[in-house]
Amino acid sequence: MGTDGARLAGNQYGKARVRVARVERGADGVHRFVDRTVRVALRGDFTAAHVEGDNAHVIATDTMKNTVHALTEDAADGESVESFLLRLHDHFGGKADHIDGVLVEASEAGYRHIDVDGAAHPYAFEQLRERRTARLDGMPRDRVLHGGIEELSILKTTESWFRDFPRDEFTTLPETDDRVMATIVTGSWRFTDEAADFEGAWRVIRAALMETFATHPSPSVQATLFEMASAALAACPAIDEVSLALPNRHYIPLDLTAIGRSRGAVLLPTDEPHGLIEATVTRT
Amino acid sequence: MGTDGARLAGNQYGKARVRVARVERGADGVHRFVDRTVRVALRGDFTAAHVEGDNAHVIATDTMKNTVHALTEDAADGESVESFLLRLHDHFGGKADHIDGVLVEASEAGYRHIDVDGAAHPYAFEQLRERRTARLDGMPRDRVLHGGIEELSILKTTESWFRDFPRDEFTTLPETDDRVMATIVTGSWRFTDEAADFEGAWRVIRAALMETFATHPSPSVQATLFEMASAALAACPAIDEVSLALPNRHYIPLDLTAIGRSRGAVLLPTDEPHGLIEATVTRT
Amino acid sequence: MGTDGARLAGNQYGKARVRVARVERGADGVHRFVDRTVRVALRGDFTAAHVEGDNAHVIATDTMKNTVHALTEDAADGESVESFLLRLHDHFGGKADHIDGVLVEASEAGYRHIDVDGAAHPYAFEQLRERRTARLDGMPRDRVLHGGIEELSILKTTESWFRDFPRDEFTTLPETDDRVMATIVTGSWRFTDEAADFEGAWRVIRAALMETFATHPSPSVQATLFEMASAALAACPAIDEVSLALPNRHYIPLDLTAIGRSRGAVLLPTDEPHGLIEATVTRT
Amino acid sequence: MGTDGARLAGNQYGKARVRVARVERGADGVHRFVDRTVRVALRGDFTAAHVEGDNAHVIATDTMKNTVHALTEDAADGESVESFLLRLHDHFGGKADHIDGVLVEASEAGYRHIDVDGAAHPYAFEQLRERRTARLDGMPRDRVLHGGIEELSILKTTESWFRDFPRDEFTTLPETDDRVMATIVTGSWRFTDEAADFEGAWRVIRAALMETFATHPSPSVQATLFEMASAALAACPAIDEVSLALPNRHYIPLDLTAIGRSRGAVLLPTDEPHGLIEATVTRT
Repeated sequence: MGTDGARLAGNQYGKARVRVARVERGADGVHRFVDRTVRVALRGDFTAAHVEGDNAHVIATDTMKNTVHALTEDAADGESVESFLLRLHDHFGGKADHIDGVLVEASEAGYRHIDVDGAAHPYAFEQLRERRTARLDGMPRDRVLHGGIEELSILKTTESWFRDFPRDEFTTLPETDDRVMATIVTGSWRFTDEAADFEGAWRVIRAALMETFATHPSPSVQATLFEMASAALAACPAIDEVSLALPNRHYIPLDLTAIGRSRGAVLLPTDEPHGLIEATVTRT
Repeated sequence: MGTDGARLAGNQYGKARVRVARVERGADGVHRFVDRTVRVALRGDFTAAHVEGDNAHVIATDTMKNTVHALTEDAADGESVESFLLRLHDHFGGKADHIDGVLVEASEAGYRHIDVDGAAHPYAFEQLRERRTARLDGMPRDRVLHGGIEELSILKTTESWFRDFPRDEFTTLPETDDRVMATIVTGSWRFTDEAADFEGAWRVIRAALMETFATHPSPSVQATLFEMASAALAACPAIDEVSLALPNRHYIPLDLTAIGRSRGAVLLPTDEPHGLIEATVTRT
Repeated sequence: MGTDGARLAGNQYGKARVRVARVERGADGVHRFVDRTVRVALRGDFTAAHVEGDNAHVIATDTMKNTVHALTEDAADGESVESFLLRLHDHFGGKADHIDGVLVEASEAGYRHIDVDGAAHPYAFEQLRERRTARLDGMPRDRVLHGGIEELSILKTTESWFRDFPRDEFTTLPETDDRVMATIVTGSWRFTDEAADFEGAWRVIRAALMETFATHPSPSVQATLFEMASAALAACPAIDEVSLALPNRHYIPLDLTAIGRSRGAVLLPTDEPHGLIEATVTRT
Repeated sequence: MGTDGARLAGNQYGKARVRVARVERGADGVHRFVDRTVRVALRGDFTAAHVEGDNAHVIATDTMKNTVHALTEDAADGESVESFLLRLHDHFGGKADHIDGVLVEASEAGYRHIDVDGAAHPYAFEQLRERRTARLDGMPRDRVLHGGIEELSILKTTESWFRDFPRDEFTTLPETDDRVMATIVTGSWRFTDEAADFEGAWRVIRAALMETFATHPSPSVQATLFEMASAALAACPAIDEVSLALPNRHYIPLDLTAIGRSRGAVLLPTDEPHGLIEATVTRT
């Protein structure tokens, strides 16, 4: 085995889409439901596996799955997804000398207690559309922890415009003073402290993103993105950087004058094409 | 054109996935956002189109799309999806003698006003996971109207069991006294009156489904389904029949004893296979 | 349990998305790979389960899954998906007196041997986009067997037109003498004989659908659909009815005159909205 | 606008999922159908847009879409997707001083002529499962061009094993001497020459990947990945680096001894979790 003239330049392997759930029963009868999809990936000296078919260094991805299962059972009730990843990363980071990089990440389903007669039911839940995410990469003494969010679909029906942009021979878009702005937020933020209050951070960052989107008069998705990220930084001292990716989900005003109606009263929702605005904002 | 020995036995055609949106600006500054995916289909004497390539009877599906656009503009503010379908059905039902069946249906995105400092923001919205549906089929004087819901993902972490079921040579499932019960509700209900209060019906039926799921101690998905449908009938006099399709999304207790942990503390969320329980419940 | 005023009017339950695969090693060293997703559903007297929470009649859906596993092992090499469903249906149809309807269906991944140096490799495969389907419904002495296909994506770049259709106040579509016609075929055909040569039927029906689509000059999707179904009937005496559902996946000619280009040279592929043409064709 | 304490650290924006198609009619009556999804993204000095809401530098993403349309019309018949991206990149790379990075990428649907009576039909096509990709990033004088493939689903039913891997307290996977190996290839390769024969490269690289997968006896996905990438490098002098991402789609041998069958005769196809093996191979 092995081919003359070829060299392994980089590699990473692991287990993706490991799913786990657990029920936590509080002393007050109120339950918490944890439902995660986890990924583990290792980097390091795996040349023999690739070039010689020697698996002596290859921790089976099935073992990674079992490790996620075991460490899920070991959790204390109420453990955040970030804290879970820290424990999981510790495990693989100390595993073997030939490993020089460990990536663990998770996406967690959002659940809200069902409302029954105006009160939160203690153990019945409705799943939200959005998911909370976390990611930890590096080696135990030198690693970077991110929290995040995905699939948060939000829109506003006014206070958004887009004008004064450059025009060339391929520009046909009219300027607009009032448009629907709709997006599905994917975002992440970098923690500066592994002992941060992750649950509190999640709450204030999510609220800052939502409230800023709602209240910021928007000259562009770029400007709204910057305000949202800035507000998240201002709300949470435990982070020093926020990255957002905001698709611009266009609701296009239809011209129905050819069929006896008007222009702009009906909008056409579209999934493609869409703008895609991405930026990272840090503290000065 | 046409082939000896073959005969057209049934046919239906139309336009699917017609998307429309509109913004409704209330006098109080509070906006409503309507975002629908609509389908139109016609049945009738279309033999010449199929057998002879004669399109004289074939209303273009592009015309159907334009009709959905035009009638969306014509709506009064606050019009329900059911009322919109009634207008759309009237249009096609009276269109031509060769039409003897009209199907119109719609799926509507759910939006909730974003909360800002404890108050509902007037024109910023968060999209829900669930969608509201409606369907109208038949001819104007003889048609059936359904409201409905889809993608409502709910679960409870206790008060669900499954036992005393028959066992044969292929049965390995243990009985269980306490399990997670999770489902994604697809449901529809038949209205008895085209002048019903559709918005009110939606609210009380949705609440009845959710509250019954939460509070009904469950010996099986079948029993919970029956209770949910019965509660919806009890809550809304304007309907006389409820159909529900409930996948049983299994969270399987893992046996981790081989890796030094326990049995049942960690659950495995699975999408496939899943149970699928369907029933229709009517008034006695 | 049980609610005054509500009655169970119809019900069906079972297991969906049961996945199974098997490798068949031919005496000549050539392998066959079978990869199916199966569904089982039962109808009958399950009132006690719904109304009283009595599971005495409820064959667990987990048992259905195990049965699919066991009967997959029992297959003879080369068994068609239709023959597999016949065995599976026999099993459940004879299971209990309270059952009065059994539905089994399957979707089978398509695989083609990989070509190596111009020859079919004996045990390496490439997965096709299309899937073969089958469905059997009823009771053992009175049941209907269908074969089918899904996800067959085909198109032609000419010999398709659409004109002479009616115009009303909402019609804006121009007539066209030459257009791209693209569809994704979902089709099924009814067998008249449970001992038919199912593999041979699959080959000649698939070929008839494809060749007719390619060679039939098309005045409409309706006309092409009818020709395709007629050709399938002509090709296979073991079936007496063909149903096709053909989305009309529009490739819309763009008008680029505003940006210094032409009209119609570039096409816009769209997924939504799309026409949806459905018909059933039988023998005369 | 602008928030104290926040700074724009990086940004990129553009249009994603721009779809275009064109029909090319050869002098011999044989057609080619081009069907692409394109993305354009720009990097550079867009601080004013983010911080001050000044759009003077913001080429509208709608203009990017129009540009993709126009340059699709400008293509010579037979132009490869790589050559198209080179033209598109040239356009944006020379557009404005404030731009310092241009990313363009495309995914192209695969089509095969339909076989009619043993011959390729000239203008009827069947869509393949796989897609061809390309990506070009940088600035015109300093940019990197990749070709690629995605959604290529392949498997082999034998000549794959996995053993001699390390075992720890969380390892339960048995060693195996014969297993199904299934993957869905995502791959890319870096061209060293913008004037390469891209069509020829596509053909020999694709063939090398497929044939090596089929014929290489596999001690692990890692070893097969390395062989496949090495073979691609050996087959095509115009590239100097190949990256592959291979999910390990497990077909798990079922133990059916509890229901009177055997162990390993039936396999369970699974989508999650899956191994995910990634590596980059270069020339020595």
